[in-house]
Amino acid sequence: MTTTLITNIAELTTNTAEHGTLRDAALVIDGDRVAWVGPASSAPAADTRHDAGGRAVLPGWVDSHTHLVFAGDRTAEFAARMAGKPYTAGGIATTVAATRAATDDELAAVLRRHVAEAVAQGTTYIETKTGYGLTVADELRSARIAGSAADEVTFLGAHLVPPGSDPDSYVDLVIAEMLPAVAPYVGWADVFCETGAFDADQSRAVLQAAAAHGLGLRVHGNQLGPGPGVALAVELGAASVDHCTYLSQSDVDALAGSDTVATLLPACDLSTRQPLPDARRLIDAGATIALATNCNPGSSYTTSMAYCVTTAVLQMRLSITEAVAAATIGAAKSLNRTDIGHLGVGARADVHLIDAPSITHLAYRPGIPLTHAVWRAGNPSTLGKR
Amino acid sequence: MTTTLITNIAELTTNTAEHGTLRDAALVIDGDRVAWVGPASSAPAADTRHDAGGRAVLPGWVDSHTHLVFAGDRTAEFAARMAGKPYTAGGIATTVAATRAATDDELAAVLRRHVAEAVAQGTTYIETKTGYGLTVADELRSARIAGSAADEVTFLGAHLVPPGSDPDSYVDLVIAEMLPAVAPYVGWADVFCETGAFDADQSRAVLQAAAAHGLGLRVHGNQLGPGPGVALAVELGAASVDHCTYLSQSDVDALAGSDTVATLLPACDLSTRQPLPDARRLIDAGATIALATNCNPGSSYTTSMAYCVTTAVLQMRLSITEAVAAATIGAAKSLNRTDIGHLGVGARADVHLIDAPSITHLAYRPGIPLTHAVWRAGNPSTLGKR
Ligand SMILES: [Zn+2]
Ligand SMILES: [Zn+2]
Repeated sequence: MTTTLITNIAELTTNTAEHGTLRDAALVIDGDRVAWVGPASSAPAADTRHDAGGRAVLPGWVDSHTHLVFAGDRTAEFAARMAGKPYTAGGIATTVAATRAATDDELAAVLRRHVAEAVAQGTTYIETKTGYGLTVADELRSARIAGSAADEVTFLGAHLVPPGSDPDSYVDLVIAEMLPAVAPYVGWADVFCETGAFDADQSRAVLQAAAAHGLGLRVHGNQLGPGPGVALAVELGAASVDHCTYLSQSDVDALAGSDTVATLLPACDLSTRQPLPDARRLIDAGATIALATNCNPGSSYTTSMAYCVTTAVLQMRLSITEAVAAATIGAAKSLNRTDIGHLGVGARADVHLIDAPSITHLAYRPGIPLTHAVWRAGNPSTLGKR
Repeated sequence: MTTTLITNIAELTTNTAEHGTLRDAALVIDGDRVAWVGPASSAPAADTRHDAGGRAVLPGWVDSHTHLVFAGDRTAEFAARMAGKPYTAGGIATTVAATRAATDDELAAVLRRHVAEAVAQGTTYIETKTGYGLTVADELRSARIAGSAADEVTFLGAHLVPPGSDPDSYVDLVIAEMLPAVAPYVGWADVFCETGAFDADQSRAVLQAAAAHGLGLRVHGNQLGPGPGVALAVELGAASVDHCTYLSQSDVDALAGSDTVATLLPACDLSTRQPLPDARRLIDAGATIALATNCNPGSSYTTSMAYCVTTAVLQMRLSITEAVAAATIGAAKSLNRTDIGHLGVGARADVHLIDAPSITHLAYRPGIPLTHAVWRAGNPSTLGKR
């Protein structure tokens, strides 16, 4: 294994209690792990040396919510929405039809292109979901393809009742046939618990069956209006409930009293002209939040975690430290991972070097592409890109 | 002069009545001008040929409002603001002190770095202002340096009353000494007409004196609250009044009945946690709007016109066509230029090629750096960057 010393780091955000935020720091990568963190002046020797040039280093973004196994285009639907048409769950069916019609190679290429785009912007760990297949064969295929490029794969057979299907029969199909077929290829199961998709009882049935298959649980909830998603997620001990745009006080209390992470998707809310979620209220109540892109061609077509962080600071009243934590270690918690989202010794070497002296610039410089270099599990990905 | 054919353009936004938006188009550059626009199938031959690869082309961004002759850093002030401290005009004094202390070379380097950053993101025509000197010598120096890299230079001696100065005496100095010294080096004069800066009478006096020197007029107005800036700008026939965050009905009516452009600066409003201006109301009333960055180290530290366009569509209810027009031909109008902001034959060859099949993606893909190639006055600037 070769070692790499990254030195001359103006500000190193470790997200660890031991090291906190270091100035004039250095970091050593050994293979795919962080081997040493500390002051630049006392850094050990290494096989190769990278001068950070007085830039800031932080953990790579953890994008814990994407839908990247898809085909087709929804530009026209987006343009219509910007001209005043409301967003509904129904648009998903457009992508389902295109995804079913695509070849495996086409789907894998779309996935790889978007993962590469994400990594070039500092994302080092990425979850993606099935959910545009909605038949046993298409969901199984989506899960296999997802695993070819994403770090975590989630089964979202319960994304939408396919047009023409009976809802309860479809839930039975998800539970009796899809889950057994797909479970070996995924770590997680998710349900879109929302008016127009699945109600609380249907969602609970799918999630309980998924838990019986040993899968971790996630929920899409409270996106388009108040609903039972958050309560259900907490009831079932889900690792994450995602969207959380419309929360009641009891939803906030339930999240604060649980280990379920509230994953906020501000690029989605803006892209669907929904209000932004009340992140301040969640944090102040004691809940753990994550930020993710929800990258998908319908409601949030971006891989930019930086855009989510910028929005969280400028428009959701998070401090930059809170927003960066939500997009790294908070998102890691939502995936039950303790070895990512921070730069402690032993962590996966997911390192993000930005063209700025501090993480504050991620909000101070909105829209500027600040990613300068990325190491993903120790691999240099975009060195010298700019 | 050499000619360049850019062909295989999926969508060509010309901003002209003659050509509108073309599909499967081509464009010929001859020297620094657009020589031909039309269907790819009937494009003439040229010395060199650039395949746009099915991407979209639009006019380069016109950034009609920046403050790039500065030194120093205001990261800490920004972080404090994000922790709840309100924005006031007073922070400008921090930059004034740092700018006065900097050498000419340091100021020129900061300017060049930010102009290059802007061009790399698709900006092809850029205005910048003095206003961090606030002495005759420092304003003159700022104007000369500004002209070394910006396309248009604006004198903003009336940016702030320097700490320790008497306001009326300072206005007298601006009129009697600064204007005569600086006028030969600038095309425009501007005043920060706002509580804490200059009132209507002071602003009028400065602008009338500037007009007598043959300068075009611009106004910073209605940024932090309702105020007289818009009415004054219209009264004096200013080309632009910038910010327009707080408008009365009579302000809107005055703008709609005038040739004064309302230049909106959404990145500034978000960076200072102000509301976004009501662009929809202005357009619906018949006013011309522009979008610009207001790039400066205090209230809006971004050169990203794309961020402004994305925000205008997602959060200010403009259509993508309206937002792109505001950031190109609307901004050109605010600078009294008819040869930029569009891609008609004879226009300056300011060409922006984006990594997307249509301009819709500028809002559909928030935060994604889409600039693929830029020609500025016919010069290729970032070809093959990504
Ligand atoms: Zn989703
Ligand atoms: Zn300004």
